[in-house]
Amino acid sequence: MPLTHFPPPPNIKAPPLSYATRVGDLLFVSGIPGFDDTGQLSDDFATQFGFVAATIKRILKDAGTDVAHLVKVNVLLTRAADVATMNALYADAFGPPPYPARTTCVIAQLPDPRMLIEIECVASVASA
Amino acid sequence: MPLTHFPPPPNIKAPPLSYATRVGDLLFVSGIPGFDDTGQLSDDFATQFGFVAATIKRILKDAGTDVAHLVKVNVLLTRAADVATMNALYADAFGPPPYPARTTCVIAQLPDPRMLIEIECVASVASA
Amino acid sequence: MPLTHFPPPPNIKAPPLSYATRVGDLLFVSGIPGFDDTGQLSDDFATQFGFVAATIKRILKDAGTDVAHLVKVNVLLTRAADVATMNALYADAFGPPPYPARTTCVIAQLPDPRMLIEIECVASVASA
Repeated sequence: MPLTHFPPPPNIKAPPLSYATRVGDLLFVSGIPGFDDTGQLSDDFATQFGFVAATIKRILKDAGTDVAHLVKVNVLLTRAADVATMNALYADAFGPPPYPARTTCVIAQLPDPRMLIEIECVASVASA
Repeated sequence: MPLTHFPPPPNIKAPPLSYATRVGDLLFVSGIPGFDDTGQLSDDFATQFGFVAATIKRILKDAGTDVAHLVKVNVLLTRAADVATMNALYADAFGPPPYPARTTCVIAQLPDPRMLIEIECVASVASA
Repeated sequence: MPLTHFPPPPNIKAPPLSYATRVGDLLFVSGIPGFDDTGQLSDDFATQFGFVAATIKRILKDAGTDVAHLVKVNVLLTRAADVATMNALYADAFGPPPYPARTTCVIAQLPDPRMLIEIECVASVASA
């Protein structure tokens, strides 16, 4: 099947990756960090979460889909203390129910040590 | 493609997620922890593994498939010392060969600090 | 959908897994470590990366595809200090652009404590 790549915004100094790749009717979205539109990263968890969710929603929209069509989400945290806050913010940002399947884990570090969260996901996209 | 969501059991205080979501002929299963049917979590690794495997098999059955149709499995452990035990239990629970593709990693923590293992997976489901 | 399993090489003492499993037009590849063809593991990061990339390319070829058809890649590192080196090696091994979607994270440990990197991926395969 042919692939469609969705590149990172041109103003971001991104590593060698696409923000998302479509294959057939599935969209695989990269682990998205919480930088704002000017490339700044807040040290506040809720602020980082907000930019992660906003960026994912923009990627989904660019690919012709939305949060209601998320199939699977992986939430990567660097601090166990953020789990409860994340669940509250997540329920609001990725709702209403039914929610996609999801895995949450606390890892040692993300590529930038100031990153507190990344979210990656798989979404369904309407057939062309 | 339309999605089919498989919710967590009603007696579980679950975070905002489905246990599994089907899209087309693929089923994406959430990271499944080792709680028993009454919501208790043993501190014994093999016991937690047993409930993880049993819950996954029930989810697969509810979605019309089984372990022989697992495509990819991710095993998340919180203690490196459990790798060998996990492989032995896994070979029995997810066999016989050929086994699905798999990644195993040891992470800092799972959402509940007492959780020693979670397993997430992707399975093939028969066309409707 | 029927599955096609790609087993590990016969000379490797592998855990219970396939190196890759194909379902429909998608190939799910296991987390691939950096052992050489004789089962040795260098303590040098770039050397481990080279064997990871070579093994993945061999798996993709065996399944009838190649790096240009990678949809999603996950890079698991055990040392945050290797991120920059990984990105440089990755751009070369998995290029040219456009690159697949990707998530990179630093975890506590991989199944063998000497492993510094594993890469898992999803690729598109041409219809039969």
